[in-house]
Amino acid sequence: MYDLIIVGAGPAGYIAAERAGHMGKKVLIVEREHLGGVCTNYGCIPTKSLLNAAKHFVYGQESSKFGVHFDNPRFNFTEAMAWKTETVETLRKGIAFLMKQGSVEVVKGEAGFPGGTSVSVDKTVYEGINLLIATGSEAFVPPIPGADGPNVVTNREILSLDKLPQKLAVIGGGVIGVEFASFFSSVGVEVHVIEMMNEICPMMDAEAAALLRKKMDKVDFQLGAKVTEVTPSGVKFEKTDEKSGEKAESFIDADMVLMSVGRRPITAGLENTGLDIGRQGIVVDEKMHTNLPGVWAAGDVTGKSLLAHSASRMAEVAVANMFAGDDASTGGSIMRYNAVPWAVYTMPEVAGCGLTEGEARDAGYNVNCASMQMRANGRFLAEHGKDAGFCKVIADADTNLILGIHMIGAVCSEMIGTAATFIEAELRVQDIREIIFPHPSVSEVIRDVCWSL
Amino acid sequence: MYDLIIVGAGPAGYIAAERAGHMGKKVLIVEREHLGGVCTNYGCIPTKSLLNAAKHFVYGQESSKFGVHFDNPRFNFTEAMAWKTETVETLRKGIAFLMKQGSVEVVKGEAGFPGGTSVSVDKTVYEGINLLIATGSEAFVPPIPGADGPNVVTNREILSLDKLPQKLAVIGGGVIGVEFASFFSSVGVEVHVIEMMNEICPMMDAEAAALLRKKMDKVDFQLGAKVTEVTPSGVKFEKTDEKSGEKAESFIDADMVLMSVGRRPITAGLENTGLDIGRQGIVVDEKMHTNLPGVWAAGDVTGKSLLAHSASRMAEVAVANMFAGDDASTGGSIMRYNAVPWAVYTMPEVAGCGLTEGEARDAGYNVNCASMQMRANGRFLAEHGKDAGFCKVIADADTNLILGIHMIGAVCSEMIGTAATFIEAELRVQDIREIIFPHPSVSEVIRDVCWSL
Repeated sequence: MYDLIIVGAGPAGYIAAERAGHMGKKVLIVEREHLGGVCTNYGCIPTKSLLNAAKHFVYGQESSKFGVHFDNPRFNFTEAMAWKTETVETLRKGIAFLMKQGSVEVVKGEAGFPGGTSVSVDKTVYEGINLLIATGSEAFVPPIPGADGPNVVTNREILSLDKLPQKLAVIGGGVIGVEFASFFSSVGVEVHVIEMMNEICPMMDAEAAALLRKKMDKVDFQLGAKVTEVTPSGVKFEKTDEKSGEKAESFIDADMVLMSVGRRPITAGLENTGLDIGRQGIVVDEKMHTNLPGVWAAGDVTGKSLLAHSASRMAEVAVANMFAGDDASTGGSIMRYNAVPWAVYTMPEVAGCGLTEGEARDAGYNVNCASMQMRANGRFLAEHGKDAGFCKVIADADTNLILGIHMIGAVCSEMIGTAATFIEAELRVQDIREIIFPHPSVSEVIRDVCWSL
Repeated sequence: MYDLIIVGAGPAGYIAAERAGHMGKKVLIVEREHLGGVCTNYGCIPTKSLLNAAKHFVYGQESSKFGVHFDNPRFNFTEAMAWKTETVETLRKGIAFLMKQGSVEVVKGEAGFPGGTSVSVDKTVYEGINLLIATGSEAFVPPIPGADGPNVVTNREILSLDKLPQKLAVIGGGVIGVEFASFFSSVGVEVHVIEMMNEICPMMDAEAAALLRKKMDKVDFQLGAKVTEVTPSGVKFEKTDEKSGEKAESFIDADMVLMSVGRRPITAGLENTGLDIGRQGIVVDEKMHTNLPGVWAAGDVTGKSLLAHSASRMAEVAVANMFAGDDASTGGSIMRYNAVPWAVYTMPEVAGCGLTEGEARDAGYNVNCASMQMRANGRFLAEHGKDAGFCKVIADADTNLILGIHMIGAVCSEMIGTAATFIEAELRVQDIREIIFPHPSVSEVIRDVCWSL
């Protein structure tokens, strides 16, 4: 009898295993493929490896303004992919080591759900006091004619290419779509992004999204474009003329099509368990408990927040609650979504945490909002010149609490944890003004904006 | 009659002017040279411009592991210096604009102190209700034979060179010394650092300092070395053999010598004003008030913390106190030094905030300390491979409060603001465990260490 059986070893599953293992619990984790899940194998990590390579490729071509000169820039895709693979494999091994450290039993195979908190793999049934379902999500391929063609790839297949495409059409301008568009366009591939909405990346501040599009000037963005068919030679889509209301059809030539319109929870095998599964995924309460006794869920499969770090935190909350009373040091037991940061690792990077200005106004807050151009920041200017980028802070004018911080430019992915801290710790504008940031750093822009609020 | 007269337009002076100006106060600022002080003109900003160029030069030569190739790397020092100068001039203009925005009167000239809160420039005497002395610091040139020679430069002169030296000897392995050593060694200059103590950078975690030295493998470090003479062709120093106690003299060949052994407060003209001036600088209380009515001091001239961002915060505190009661939104009125972050912009970067492990133990805390190798972090691994670097968190085992966070590797200069926030907001280890950091980011290493505490 296990204290905890976990299905899925992604950032929800393996963190749950690590935390419970360190608490001295007897833990089993079942994974049908690789430790690390989509994040380590087909998501966060491989894309960041490739995007970093692309960044170096671009930087080396743009550094003459600093007096740094190179000739003959070449991007070797095979070598970049080998670096990516090495990174992924090292991290997988790291997770295996963490499992060993926490005395977590790892079983490879497809999990079945015979009922209650039991899990079967092949013909073996494992009994647990608690079951955590962390099966994740997969790319959603919409029922568009031709979408099942051999020229259509998702985030999985595109990370296993052995050569670069010549012309890539990306269907869906969300985070996954724009990151791949940034990578491929930076290394010489012709890229078209076709997005149904009128703007890319709906979670972004509207100004940041527009600026990102402008900065990704090698990419052709088709907004408000509804894909009607994928053919072996490209993508058909239609746009509606704003004035006349007439629809016009267009075609984009592409030898490869990336489908990145969204993701859906993996709930196969759970249909007859009595588990409450909604349109977004497994329904959980704020303690990550499902409707079934002893059954918990965390990560993408809940549909609550499709981010690796949200998944890990959900897992921590689930573990803290399933063993509540045993060990108070496991942290809080309520999952909060108001201070979840996100980052998009395009060139430039974009990051945010909390409400955007638009969301705050829509929610009826008495908004106090200010922003500052990155070029007014000393370090940004020293390293990027008068390049565009900004940081926007959204506060509640009634309480002075921070509702959201959104930024574009430089390494804002490494700065946004500070914003998460502000919101989570419920710091007010006047508290942040007293915090000392290092000078010169881009991060002090957040403080400067708070002084201008 | 001015509400406030400020002497010195560095990061203490111009921030004081900006804050007081925004409060509607009548402000005069006196500067004998350039707006921005040492920081903008001969410190933080020009060095970061050059270090960024050096970083690109090194990155372009090391990127083949990612599949990114360039030929024929060249560093053009004249162009790098032009970029630096452009950055500095843009920021100076930015400060001039801020002064205008705050209706701050700027007077160029050498300030005299006729007494009380008055200031004279040339033959004009300006009367103020408050006087803020923010005259800063200058490089200390010790009385070593030959230290006044034409081959000896400080941080000022070295930023105006028209060509690279061939062999540079750096006397003093503090922050200024190691940053210049990092820059010059990266662009092909032979560099020797001669440090009297047994380790560089005394504010650093001891392990981080040792690792930084190891990573700066193109630089020759001479530790425990006492300079006895600077000659036209180099530097003489003596080391004491640890076992025998015998002194041995050595000579390092160098066509240029950078003197960076320390800085001293600029208090010329204040000798007969009755101001209490100690060995470190102008004596101030926690409100930045001096012993004289209406006279305040902020920044390097107080000797309290020789960092630009400390100077700015001291200035804010002084302004908040001199106009206390007028406007509660100006922030707190006590200067705290326990959460002042610092960053060293070498390759790799080093950053810290709060006590080091050694300082915490010496202070008698019941220390709970853990660290994590950067290579265990997904983003670090994706971007830097298995390179060395770590993050160390020092907590008080009795209260779980964070005493210090110290790190080396990647862009830790942009992450250390988060540590400052933790300490300033008095977050405990268990609070930080609940904060969600973006994945993959190097910044999440801080959270991971807190989970391992």
